[in-house]
Amino acid sequence: MSKVALLLGSLRRPGNGIGIASWLHPVLREGLNDTSSGTAHTGVDVVFVDPTKPPLPLGPIVDGSHVPADIRDPSKHPNPNVREFATFVTSCNGIVVLSPEYNRGYPGELKNTFDHLYWEWHKKPVLLVTYGSSGGANCSALLRSFLGGPLKMQVAEKAVAIKLPKSHSNGSDKAPTQGPAPDWLEQYRPEVLAAVAEFKDLISQQSSS
Amino acid sequence: MSKVALLLGSLRRPGNGIGIASWLHPVLREGLNDTSSGTAHTGVDVVFVDPTKPPLPLGPIVDGSHVPADIRDPSKHPNPNVREFATFVTSCNGIVVLSPEYNRGYPGELKNTFDHLYWEWHKKPVLLVTYGSSGGANCSALLRSFLGGPLKMQVAEKAVAIKLPKSHSNGSDKAPTQGPAPDWLEQYRPEVLAAVAEFKDLISQQSSS
Repeated sequence: MSKVALLLGSLRRPGNGIGIASWLHPVLREGLNDTSSGTAHTGVDVVFVDPTKPPLPLGPIVDGSHVPADIRDPSKHPNPNVREFATFVTSCNGIVVLSPEYNRGYPGELKNTFDHLYWEWHKKPVLLVTYGSSGGANCSALLRSFLGGPLKMQVAEKAVAIKLPKSHSNGSDKAPTQGPAPDWLEQYRPEVLAAVAEFKDLISQQSSS
Repeated sequence: MSKVALLLGSLRRPGNGIGIASWLHPVLREGLNDTSSGTAHTGVDVVFVDPTKPPLPLGPIVDGSHVPADIRDPSKHPNPNVREFATFVTSCNGIVVLSPEYNRGYPGELKNTFDHLYWEWHKKPVLLVTYGSSGGANCSALLRSFLGGPLKMQVAEKAVAIKLPKSHSNGSDKAPTQGPAPDWLEQYRPEVLAAVAEFKDLISQQSSS
């Protein structure tokens, strides 16, 4: 059984993140378990990581006695929450990041989450899905730069950038958490599935290496 | 009486941040109150903002009912901690950011701090002081981009990038919090004072506009 984490960049409630995640979760599961495209995987579990609940509520980085790069064994992180998260990340075959863009960058909480660990991220395949009035393209580019750079993750070339309708980015409408997905979201299904096919190959190469 | 906030990007204890801040604080006060360079100011108070204590422990951004850009009046933020921080920022004539670089970017907590507010930052003069093995140059560039861009702050052209000795960036040595400042830090005094002279002019122009 493989495991993929769906990591949310936004904690805003209500917000568009939770609705987009509700739609994305089954699409990822479908794509990851589809044997007709990309590398054949079956039985891939997608674990929804709500950053307001364990194993993610890591808090600010306060422990200066060891920087994450000093800790090669996930069980050696001094803080129990970080240790739990490190063990969880190590157990995952890949990570999907679903993130909004705040002020032309990634949300602080998301950067904070990644900065808590170091070796746990190395070579881990990651797929980027961002959203915003312009699809979160700046956030996506910045994530790619530091995840693929200093953290040495394997970032899938194909990324998905979901443009929110104006009523959802500046207005009070939010992506629904139940019922059928709206057209503005559903139209990204083929793009997500194509990106997942590449992501599956990265996972497969990593598992067999 | 003018007021400048010295905002720390790092919460790590022990770390280099607190030692560099201990050195920077009186240098800023000296530069801001020096009437011989830049615009004459007297009686400028520098408020050290320790992000582990009020008014800064803002937590993750969870309130999705209003994005910060919707709230023009600092007293209208729904969360009391955010409201307190908004009032504090509004009362400051300028902001000095002292930040380490984590994984080629700004620490998540620092981005999170800025993302909580919006109108409160507009036109506010800001001076960037970063540190790291390469002086935190990437962090500085990313901060300049979003503070001067979407948040419309007035970022001083002159920024200070403090290169940590290798024993302090990768080793266990940390900038001292007491006693005389080490040479590797003290050598940046003229650079800080030159940057403060420009920063003072920005504050002065803002106060008189």
